Amino acid sequence: MALIVQKFGGTSVADIDRIKNAAARVKREVDAGHRVAVVVSAMSGVTNQLVDYVTSINTLYDTREYDVVVSSGEQVTSGLLALALQALGVSARSWLSWQLPIHTSNAYGKARIEGIDTEEILNRLNGGEVAVVPGFQGVSGENRVTTLGRGGSDTSAVALAAALGAERCDIYTDVDGVYTTDPRIVAKARKLEKITYEEMLEMASVGAKVLQTRSVEVAMNHGVRLQVRSSFSDETGTLVVDEDEIVEQEMISGIAYSRDEAKITLMGVPDRPGIAAGIFGPLAEASINVDMIVQNVSADPDQRATDMTFTVTKPDLERAVATVEKMGDILNFRKLEFDKDVVKISVIGVGMRSHAGIAQRMFQALAEKGINIQVISTSEIKVSVLISEEYAELALRALHTAYGLDKE
Amino acid sequence: MALIVQKFGGTSVADIDRIKNAAARVKREVDAGHRVAVVVSAMSGVTNQLVDYVTSINTLYDTREYDVVVSSGEQVTSGLLALALQALGVSARSWLSWQLPIHTSNAYGKARIEGIDTEEILNRLNGGEVAVVPGFQGVSGENRVTTLGRGGSDTSAVALAAALGAERCDIYTDVDGVYTTDPRIVAKARKLEKITYEEMLEMASVGAKVLQTRSVEVAMNHGVRLQVRSSFSDETGTLVVDEDEIVEQEMISGIAYSRDEAKITLMGVPDRPGIAAGIFGPLAEASINVDMIVQNVSADPDQRATDMTFTVTKPDLERAVATVEKMGDILNFRKLEFDKDVVKISVIGVGMRSHAGIAQRMFQALAEKGINIQVISTSEIKVSVLISEEYAELALRALHTAYGLDKE
Repeated sequence: MALIVQKFGGTSVADIDRIKNAAARVKREVDAGHRVAVVVSAMSGVTNQLVDYVTSINTLYDTREYDVVVSSGEQVTSGLLALALQALGVSARSWLSWQLPIHTSNAYGKARIEGIDTEEILNRLNGGEVAVVPGFQGVSGENRVTTLGRGGSDTSAVALAAALGAERCDIYTDVDGVYTTDPRIVAKARKLEKITYEEMLEMASVGAKVLQTRSVEVAMNHGVRLQVRSSFSDETGTLVVDEDEIVEQEMISGIAYSRDEAKITLMGVPDRPGIAAGIFGPLAEASINVDMIVQNVSADPDQRATDMTFTVTKPDLERAVATVEKMGDILNFRKLEFDKDVVKISVIGVGMRSHAGIAQRMFQALAEKGINIQVISTSEIKVSVLISEEYAELALRALHTAYGLDKE
Repeated sequence: MALIVQKFGGTSVADIDRIKNAAARVKREVDAGHRVAVVVSAMSGVTNQLVDYVTSINTLYDTREYDVVVSSGEQVTSGLLALALQALGVSARSWLSWQLPIHTSNAYGKARIEGIDTEEILNRLNGGEVAVVPGFQGVSGENRVTTLGRGGSDTSAVALAAALGAERCDIYTDVDGVYTTDPRIVAKARKLEKITYEEMLEMASVGAKVLQTRSVEVAMNHGVRLQVRSSFSDETGTLVVDEDEIVEQEMISGIAYSRDEAKITLMGVPDRPGIAAGIFGPLAEASINVDMIVQNVSADPDQRATDMTFTVTKPDLERAVATVEKMGDILNFRKLEFDKDVVKISVIGVGMRSHAGIAQRMFQALAEKGINIQVISTSEIKVSVLISEEYAELALRALHTAYGLDKE
């Protein structure tokens, strides 16, 4: 009698028919003899509507009240799914986050789950009752409603699975798994049978929006076996698991891209100690995340100056430029340039740890297509390059072929 | 520094502009130096939508899950109104019913408020912070969400006012007060400056849907001064108060009508002891409320039979007929007839206690218009008649004039 957590995303509970469909999927696990806890998102579109209400009252809103408003969507779905289960003859009840409770930090709007009281819910699960829990929310130490940030229902599901010691956490969504790359762009993209937590983290952080990054972190830290699968088909999805579960590790598991970055270049920055801190300190203070950073030798003939290039997210670009320009007198650079028409392409795979030449193959493939690389950054299991946005699709297809990922 | 409770109904918080308008009204009381607690309904239409979701999953729904779903609308409005107040520079926070808490019975879907913990909220009110509370809901002894039945936000407001010892409870709605009768039918209807609790109760129970009946009961029991007023105008509304506050009591305060009744007549019922119990016992067991009852001498020449007429609500008619017909062998009546095309007209006024001839004036006025009275029932402060529905408007206008209620 395994214990399974099933999570249904917004498109999987978008209307009453889909809620009934989700209930049928839960019933199937119950009929197979499993104990089941379900985590639900809001019906798709609902959270956006609620956020719109809030921002149309006040763009500088109190996040505590924001959380009261936007958390209501999942509450509705949890009651409806419990009702749909009952209609199928399955014993079920909703558990709101203050009823369990799900304890979180006081960081309203982006709270972190600190603990889940599972005693009562476990008793009920053992008695054959399905628990339906609204995702995306919890209760703060001040006994107020918190939310976990957009996509937070994934994290709710994984945290609940960890707290319950669940055998598996199935994430039902509108795609049928994790692909080697975006199948809308690369027709030959393949669905992965398995992927490691580390790779999934890198995929999520560079734009493959299948799972919220935080949820993968929690799954990795607690060893929760995740399955990403479609609520509209019966195919098995992609398992996100520990590295040692994957016997035949591919060199590269996937290729991700992010159009969310913008590039800033400071030209003619004096080449002296402390200059990097002088640039990135003020950006950090302004809560602007800097991703890739490269420092080039400058074209300056007497070598006393350098060029500094870095990337920020597009929404932060304006503030980043203003922050750096304000420091102009101190930093004393010659010129600031920025470019929004860039895309970051990343090849990801734990296999690259043990294989040489992975990065070289990437540079080669891009060069063959005449694509100029603007910035390079590498991590243990990822090589990322920044290129002009117009080459995004061409680069993805070329790399997919170069690393042997195309399906037959 | 008076303490005031303001309640805003669904049309008063129907969209973001109206929520801002409601916030401005709250601010006005705050600026006048008052402490203010606010109770809000769901945005108009939202609760109906949520009820539709529930019934489209299962018409025989679990009321505990129904309550989880339909209570969410007020939660949204409470957060939004708190945000709108903050945008006006007014210190405010929402208090969900489990945060106060508002204790209710376990009668899900139609729970009764049993108590409200006000210590923390009173501290905050005394500190100048406005409290915004979602109406219509509470928490059961099982720590689950309850709702109070449709229109329950009125009751939430009155109960909160009672618990806080508020000087006044203002009910903001889309009409500007209580009228002598329905102004859509009788153009000469007048807005009442004051009305007693007892009269308001009778008005509400016979179809004047300005206030939920239960809220008036609670107000009467706790001496809460109610004001019904419009959120769209600055006119004072109608005060609902104790009888001794009304110096110049009119004989009749208002004339109400209800199209919600249906009439059942059993002809040729054996005229023997216990026959009424034999009819109304089974109806009570089926939870069917019987309103008016009359027993006539039958046309039966040897006087051993009688005719029995009674009314039930229209939605209960079918079940009532089935229940009585099932008893046919025991009751042994000759024939059952029913009629849905009836309307109940009631003249209401505490003044009738000290005035003779009130009912006679009613019968006279209806007779002059050629309107046949089918059933009569009276209480201490009310005379009701059942007439054919087609005469409803004519009867209302005739009675309004006959009792001198027409405005000049």
